[in-house]
Amino acid sequence: MSDKQAKEKQVVVVGAGFAGLNAAKRLGNVAGIAVTVIDRENHHLFQPLLYQVAMAALSPADIAVPIRSLLARYRNIRVLKATAQSVDTANRKVVTDVGDVPYDYLVLGCGAQHAYFGHEEWEPHAPGLKSLPQATEIRRRVLEAFEIAERETHPEERRRQLTFIVIGGGPTGVELAGAIGEMSRFTLDRDFRSIDPRQTRVILVEAGPRILATFDDKLAARAMRDLESLGVQVWTGARVTDVTAEGVVIGNDKIAAATVLWAAGVRAADLGRTLGVPVDPAGRVFTGPDLTIEGHPEIFATGDMSSRAGPNGRPLPGVALVAMQEGIYAANVIRKEVRNGPQTPRPAFEYVDLGQMATIGRSRAISEFRGWKLTGVPAWWFWLLVHIYRLSGFRNRLSVLIQWAWSYMTFGRGARLIVAKDWQSYPDRANPESS
Amino acid sequence: MSDKQAKEKQVVVVGAGFAGLNAAKRLGNVAGIAVTVIDRENHHLFQPLLYQVAMAALSPADIAVPIRSLLARYRNIRVLKATAQSVDTANRKVVTDVGDVPYDYLVLGCGAQHAYFGHEEWEPHAPGLKSLPQATEIRRRVLEAFEIAERETHPEERRRQLTFIVIGGGPTGVELAGAIGEMSRFTLDRDFRSIDPRQTRVILVEAGPRILATFDDKLAARAMRDLESLGVQVWTGARVTDVTAEGVVIGNDKIAAATVLWAAGVRAADLGRTLGVPVDPAGRVFTGPDLTIEGHPEIFATGDMSSRAGPNGRPLPGVALVAMQEGIYAANVIRKEVRNGPQTPRPAFEYVDLGQMATIGRSRAISEFRGWKLTGVPAWWFWLLVHIYRLSGFRNRLSVLIQWAWSYMTFGRGARLIVAKDWQSYPDRANPESS
Repeated sequence: MSDKQAKEKQVVVVGAGFAGLNAAKRLGNVAGIAVTVIDRENHHLFQPLLYQVAMAALSPADIAVPIRSLLARYRNIRVLKATAQSVDTANRKVVTDVGDVPYDYLVLGCGAQHAYFGHEEWEPHAPGLKSLPQATEIRRRVLEAFEIAERETHPEERRRQLTFIVIGGGPTGVELAGAIGEMSRFTLDRDFRSIDPRQTRVILVEAGPRILATFDDKLAARAMRDLESLGVQVWTGARVTDVTAEGVVIGNDKIAAATVLWAAGVRAADLGRTLGVPVDPAGRVFTGPDLTIEGHPEIFATGDMSSRAGPNGRPLPGVALVAMQEGIYAANVIRKEVRNGPQTPRPAFEYVDLGQMATIGRSRAISEFRGWKLTGVPAWWFWLLVHIYRLSGFRNRLSVLIQWAWSYMTFGRGARLIVAKDWQSYPDRANPESS
Repeated sequence: MSDKQAKEKQVVVVGAGFAGLNAAKRLGNVAGIAVTVIDRENHHLFQPLLYQVAMAALSPADIAVPIRSLLARYRNIRVLKATAQSVDTANRKVVTDVGDVPYDYLVLGCGAQHAYFGHEEWEPHAPGLKSLPQATEIRRRVLEAFEIAERETHPEERRRQLTFIVIGGGPTGVELAGAIGEMSRFTLDRDFRSIDPRQTRVILVEAGPRILATFDDKLAARAMRDLESLGVQVWTGARVTDVTAEGVVIGNDKIAAATVLWAAGVRAADLGRTLGVPVDPAGRVFTGPDLTIEGHPEIFATGDMSSRAGPNGRPLPGVALVAMQEGIYAANVIRKEVRNGPQTPRPAFEYVDLGQMATIGRSRAISEFRGWKLTGVPAWWFWLLVHIYRLSGFRNRLSVLIQWAWSYMTFGRGARLIVAKDWQSYPDRANPESS
C-alpha cells in the first residue's frame, strides 16, 4: 500500500443493492476516500422487477448488471466478491469468507430475505422471491404445472396442478397472483390442447383484514377488483397453518395445490445480529436519526436491514427509493467528515416520499405519488416509466423496453423457459433415452 | 377419440430440434394427419448460438423459445413434454416416462450430447456445451475464475485461475476459445483492480493435426492466426490423457487450470440404440437413402442421431442446416404417402450444401458458402446475418439484434451474471451472514 493510500479513509460498503450501490457511487472518485464494495453476488439486482422474471416476461440479465461494470469508472472503488460473515466493531473490520477487511467507515446495506416465521420446513413447498435463482425456480414450477396438467388424465390431480396459491397480500403477492391469472387467461391460451388454461385457479391468501395494507383503502379495494377480473380469488383474514407437498392448510381446510408461492414476510439480513446492538423482531437494526447504530457513529445501517421511524412513527417501507436515499445520505455524511472533520450533531436523515406502486397484470396498477392516486391504465404507464427510468445505468434498458412493448402488443411471454436445475444430470447418460 | 381422429394417421415426432420442429411444421394443418411432438424440454434451442450464452453475450431466453408457441397455430399438433425412453418397433409405439404413444409414422430427431470417450469422470471438471444449464454453468465458471483471481494473493494460484483450457478444435471449441480470449482482453479490461485480465492464458487443445478439420485448409490456417491474435495458444497434435480438479494432463505435462471446457466429441442420443438396428461408433443410426431404418419404412432417423453418407461418402456434418432439410424431407414423404398411398421406391434425400461457418470473437470469422470462401469482417457479417435470419419465428429476434449491436459498439457483455446453482441454499439462513 502506498503512502497516499495509507492516508485515505477506508470506506467499506457491504451489499450492492440500492443502498450500497448509491452510497458507493456518491463516494466514487472523491479525494481522500478508498471504497471497498463487498457483495456475495457479482451483480446488482433490480428487485422491483424480479417478479417479471418469475412470470417469464423478462430474462435474468434484463434486471441484473455486473457490479464491476456499474462502478468501473470510479478508480477509487474496489469490488470484492465475498460473503460478509460478521462485523468486528471493536477492531473495525468486516470478517468475510476470504479474509478480513478493515474500515474507517462502514455502510451496511445487506437487505432482507423472506421469512417463514419459524416454519422453515415450508420453504421447499413454497419458494419466496428475493433472488434470481428463486425467480427462475418459480418460473419453472408455474410453467411445469401447466405441462403436467396437459398430460394428466385424472381430473382431481389436473385440478391440483392448475391451482396456484400465493401467500401474502403485499405488493409482491399481488403482482405474482395478478401475473399468473393473466398468463393463464391470455398468454397460454392457444398453447394447450387438452387443458383450458382458463380453468386455472389462482388464490391470494392474506392473514390480515385486507390486501396492500400500506396503501390507501380505496386503492387497495380497486386492486382487489382488478385481481378478481383476472380470475384471482382473494381470501383475506385467512391464516395459513401448514404448507406441504400436497397443498396448503388454512384453518381446517386443505386446499390441494401443486404450486404455492411465498410472499408473506421478510427478515433482515443476519449480519445485523452480529453488531451487538438491539434489533427489532424482523431482525432490523435500530439506528439513530443519522442512520448509525448505537455507540458507533462510523457504522451506518441502511435499506431493508435497518429499522428507522418514518414521518408517521412507523418504520419506512422496504422499497428501493428509501434505500437509495439512505445510501446517498450516508455517503454525504462521510464525504463531509472526511473533508471537514467530525460533525456534531449530524443532520438527521429525511425521507422524501416519492410514493408507492403495485401493478396487477399488463395494464392495471395502483399508485400513490405525492398525494396523487392513480389507477388503471395511467397508473400502469406511470409505473412502467418509473421503472424503466430507474433502470438507468443498465446497458439493457433499451432491450427491456422492447421486450415489454413486444409482450404488450403480442400478449407473449418472451422468457417462457423451463430450465433444468442441475447442469450435470442434464444430458442423462444414466438412463438410456433422450428426446 | 372421435371417428375423424381415429382415421387420421398418427405421426409422432421425438425431439423438437431443427429436424423435428421443421418436420412438425411441414405437417401442420395437413388433413388426415395428427402430430404429437415429444420433447423433454418445453423449448426449442437455437444451438448455433449456445456458445454466446456461455460467453455472457446473450441470455438463455434469447436463443430458446417455447415449443408450444412455435406450433400453436397448427391445430393438429399436440405437444407432449415427456422423456422418450425407447421405441417399441413391433407394436409401433414410443415408450415415455408418462406413458406410451402409438404411431403410424415416427420421426426421430433426438440430437446428440457430448461424449468423453469412456472418461465420464472428467465431466465435473470439464463441462460440455449442449444445453442451457451447461451454458450458464460455463458462464458461471469463467466469470467466477476472474473473481477468484482478483482476490487471490498467491501468484501460482492466480495464474491457475487465469488459465482456461478448451479441449477440441472443432467450430465450438474455436468459438469458445476465441470468445474467452476476447472477453479477457477487451470486455473485462476496466473492471478489475488487482489483476490484469490480459494475463489470461487461453489454450485450445486439439488431438488431430489441425483445427477445424472439416474446413478448407486455408480457412483453418486463417482461423488459427485470428485465434492467436486474440492471445489464444493453439496446441495441435496434443492428446489429453487426464482431466482433474487441478487442470489437464497432456502426455507427461500437467497444465494447472481452474477452468476446462469440453468440445471434443459428441455421441448420438441413446434412443437410437433401442431401435434394434446397427449404429456407428458414435451411436448414430444407419439409415437408407430415404432416412428410414432397416426394415421400418415408417421410422425416420434425422439430424445428429443419424449417420447417412453425404455426397462425398462421409457422414453429413452435424449442423442445423442438415437437420432442417432432413426433417422437411421426412415430412414431405409422409404427406405424399398419406395422400396417395405408399410410394416405392421413395425419392432419395439430397442435401443442398449451404456451407459452414465458424466465428472467432466479435469480428473475425471464416465461412464457406457454395464455393465462396470468406474471412475477416465480411465473413463475420455474413455469419451474423445468417444466424439472425435463421432466428426467424423467434419473437425476440429484434431483441437479439439490439443486444448484439449494443455489445459490438460498447464491447459490453450484457448477460455477465454469476447465478448460484441452487435456489434453496441461496438465502443462506444456515450460517449467520449476508452481503
